[in-house]
Amino acid sequence: MPETPRPALSGSDRTRLRRLRENGRTDRSELDAVLAAGFLCHLGVVLDGAPMVVPTVYGATADTLYLHGSVASRSLVAAPEATVCVTVTHVDSLVLARSVFEHSVNYRCAMVYGVPRQVTDAEEKLEGLRVLSEQAAPGQWDYARRPDRKELAATTLLALSLDEASVKISAGPPEDGDGPDAELGLWAGELPLHQVWGEPVPDPALPPGLSAPSHIVARVGRI
Amino acid sequence: MPETPRPALSGSDRTRLRRLRENGRTDRSELDAVLAAGFLCHLGVVLDGAPMVVPTVYGATADTLYLHGSVASRSLVAAPEATVCVTVTHVDSLVLARSVFEHSVNYRCAMVYGVPRQVTDAEEKLEGLRVLSEQAAPGQWDYARRPDRKELAATTLLALSLDEASVKISAGPPEDGDGPDAELGLWAGELPLHQVWGEPVPDPALPPGLSAPSHIVARVGRI
Repeated sequence: MPETPRPALSGSDRTRLRRLRENGRTDRSELDAVLAAGFLCHLGVVLDGAPMVVPTVYGATADTLYLHGSVASRSLVAAPEATVCVTVTHVDSLVLARSVFEHSVNYRCAMVYGVPRQVTDAEEKLEGLRVLSEQAAPGQWDYARRPDRKELAATTLLALSLDEASVKISAGPPEDGDGPDAELGLWAGELPLHQVWGEPVPDPALPPGLSAPSHIVARVGRI
Repeated sequence: MPETPRPALSGSDRTRLRRLRENGRTDRSELDAVLAAGFLCHLGVVLDGAPMVVPTVYGATADTLYLHGSVASRSLVAAPEATVCVTVTHVDSLVLARSVFEHSVNYRCAMVYGVPRQVTDAEEKLEGLRVLSEQAAPGQWDYARRPDRKELAATTLLALSLDEASVKISAGPPEDGDGPDAELGLWAGELPLHQVWGEPVPDPALPPGLSAPSHIVARVGRI
């Protein structure tokens, strides 16, 4: 993270919120926080005129989103030629209102638009893969064997600028607590949804007596 | 669910898997299971030639996916005119291998392509909204106040056929347990990721002494 203040999220026709504007955030630190809280995004590309949405892992720096995949992957082959949309969503709770109509979901969502750049510089490629690896599996870059030359060549790494991005955050209780439906006497509130890491499951091929390293065990029960 | 055997998932050029074919499933019950396990999808549409991927809730029957949103929502206004791609993803675990290159994610993913139909029939609209509501918040359709005529008119409901769909499921330990990297003596395995419902948080506007109904409390600690 840079130590200088970061510019506000840029407005573009695409990222300007059409509805529920009160949920929109313009502070770049909100984008950083949403991206830092996950490791899986949904990558949207246009293929033969139709949308295709695929889940994939990502790694975020202050100004770049890194995406990767096999060279053979259709979406990544298509992506460098055109605009993509990358969406990262965290569901925080169900909002259970007095009326079905007022039910909703509390969530944090980041959307990033841009034309990805295929990373070919060896140094940036290794650094991008490190960022991507550490986002999903912190500590593994130092613990596991790093990519060799052949593996690097077999990996497509895309860099997407975070210049055109929007963040929406929805939080709080149902909104019908002061309306006529409050008279119905029904319970209303939020049902939180948590993501939690479970106990590590050893590879059956492991020799006996090898325990999981502390950087993995430390994640259990947390997100 | 129908009691007759369901046809296999249809192949189309889009849904045919280009890579990791061993992860592909053709049994329609696998699609049912992936869709039944969630309530949030990522809807991809093409808008002004660019992809847009937005998170939204869905409800699934044996042959139809229902999506809804405000009439004002851009994505749903655009969607009825063209093909959409709806993707539902569940992350089950991180696959921590001996090499960074072999790291991956175990997941279940369904992708559905089609041109959605806007539901205008009042009876189907109500039934679709019930399916959608019960998928995210089972029990609330009977507990909360159902949509009135005005609310129904303000809701856009889209129906997407499940005819063109694919399912990918990735499971199991890392794949480098019998390769040269096994000699490195590193721990390898899976780190499971669980989604768990937390304790209900009452709306601060509730009168004192009103407790959450049993169909909500019963979900706590489960997914």
